Amino acid sequence: MIGRKCAERVATAGKIGDMPVDMLTLIDVIAPEVAQDFDGKRTAIAADLSAAGTAERIVGARPDVIVHLAAIVSGEAEADFEKGYRVNLDGTRALFEAIRAVKGYVPRVVYASSLAVFGAPFPEKIEDDYHLTPLTSYGAQKAMGEVLLDDYTRRGFLDGVGIRFPTICIRPGRPNKAASSFFSGILREPLNGEQAILPVGDDVRHWFASVRSAVGFVEHAATMDTVLLGARRNMTMPGVSATVGDQIEALRDVAGDEAVALIRRAPDPVVARIIEGWPRDFNTARAREMGFRAETSFREIVDVYLEDELEGRRSGA
Amino acid sequence: MIGRKCAERVATAGKIGDMPVDMLTLIDVIAPEVAQDFDGKRTAIAADLSAAGTAERIVGARPDVIVHLAAIVSGEAEADFEKGYRVNLDGTRALFEAIRAVKGYVPRVVYASSLAVFGAPFPEKIEDDYHLTPLTSYGAQKAMGEVLLDDYTRRGFLDGVGIRFPTICIRPGRPNKAASSFFSGILREPLNGEQAILPVGDDVRHWFASVRSAVGFVEHAATMDTVLLGARRNMTMPGVSATVGDQIEALRDVAGDEAVALIRRAPDPVVARIIEGWPRDFNTARAREMGFRAETSFREIVDVYLEDELEGRRSGA
Repeated sequence: MIGRKCAERVATAGKIGDMPVDMLTLIDVIAPEVAQDFDGKRTAIAADLSAAGTAERIVGARPDVIVHLAAIVSGEAEADFEKGYRVNLDGTRALFEAIRAVKGYVPRVVYASSLAVFGAPFPEKIEDDYHLTPLTSYGAQKAMGEVLLDDYTRRGFLDGVGIRFPTICIRPGRPNKAASSFFSGILREPLNGEQAILPVGDDVRHWFASVRSAVGFVEHAATMDTVLLGARRNMTMPGVSATVGDQIEALRDVAGDEAVALIRRAPDPVVARIIEGWPRDFNTARAREMGFRAETSFREIVDVYLEDELEGRRSGA
Repeated sequence: MIGRKCAERVATAGKIGDMPVDMLTLIDVIAPEVAQDFDGKRTAIAADLSAAGTAERIVGARPDVIVHLAAIVSGEAEADFEKGYRVNLDGTRALFEAIRAVKGYVPRVVYASSLAVFGAPFPEKIEDDYHLTPLTSYGAQKAMGEVLLDDYTRRGFLDGVGIRFPTICIRPGRPNKAASSFFSGILREPLNGEQAILPVGDDVRHWFASVRSAVGFVEHAATMDTVLLGARRNMTMPGVSATVGDQIEALRDVAGDEAVALIRRAPDPVVARIIEGWPRDFNTARAREMGFRAETSFREIVDVYLEDELEGRRSGA
């Protein structure tokens, strides 16, 4: 989803940051849709990064910027240990190795990491220098990718920026089976006049940013002056620490009590236990110092969704 | 060196901790010396862990405890990028994969990590939850091994304990080309009536433990109750934070001014700059809580060396 949004933005603007873009190649295991409104050369490739030759093919065109978002997601990496390591770790390493193999080629590599590099127990607010303690194989693979990104950068093989995305809210589209789905659902569905299920209590706190911010993180990471980063290339992105109660009040602000009334409370101890192991708040001073920006209140996150996805419409209005 | 000392100790005692040992297999790229005074079955194998089949061969005998010390050292991993990753990362992963392939086999795996997982800048005293910031490929490979150890343990494939060794002091033997060599040399050589070179100032601070403590760490890691560790299996081992000045005063205490007079000051800016990037002090509350023990003063480190290597002899006495 973030990949598609980033490609749309680059295609529409014809540039990334201030850099004109004259070639845009999208790669995914299933052929991605090619953005239409773009004058440059567009290509879509269906390929598995962990398969022999794919990384070399990507690097063959010598792109100035490589945005590496692709991954086996958390649930699948946990269910299929081998596939998770093959795609998330070996695939990432294959990409970095293909880059290293080309003498004098040092592209910017934007690496999508995850809050899953952190695992409970941790402090209420996680500092930039807190250790990585993944509690999923996905998180372990992402953490190893961060270490590789730093080392390949330090050795001068690539110019990496690793970004740990907050939970994206409000995700457009339909609910899915992810434990985090309700964080978007309890806003998105009522804004569409539909009922939503809330499986946890109002005091549950988590870390959020909008889709627009997520695209902004990628764009900034692709174009920023990396000299400022020194040897430490991975950062937790800024976001908003908000409780479910904060989310509900933001919904009430923009869409009234009738929207809030569409949230049906159905406590689910399984979901509650999973979420309990998730981080709640971060001090992201470093990323902000480096110019990364996100919303500063949950209400702002809702407003951004209304503007970007619902053309400013409020369901109660 | 630590591997040989551990093997000697196990062979002499016929047990590790309270566990009787009836088979001891030593593996190294060059055939290791087999400890003599041991009744159990002894084997020495010359093999490269990163070569196909080696890991399976090790696991074939289903050892209860696997101590994984082997590695391409820091300087070589920096000079030969591919070899470092092949041996230190792929070799470690091959071992863990060979273990995972055997259903129902969950050996204790003691993994030797390193202070090289930390890279400057860092606080004067590094806490247990400080993030890993390697500045060498060796450190990066060790950090990735730590993440693998945690994940393979969490998934129930093995029962890992990762130990980050302090700089071992006083190393027996001759000076070598490591930047850290003088930390042992300025004590070892004068205790033998020989001159030693000191390339840095008296105020340089670093983190030390004796060979005896290092062997003790491995023994405790091999036999401790790992339930206490939960999901976080890697720890910085306890040690002594001491300056070069502290080292010299400990030497004076045990061997007098004439021994200290054998230290020749020859400032070397290259060595000084390397050492500047090394950690100086740690809070190792977690490892101590878990039962790991080291010396508590530098004088004690010198006394242990005199007892273990020089049969209590003091050169000045």
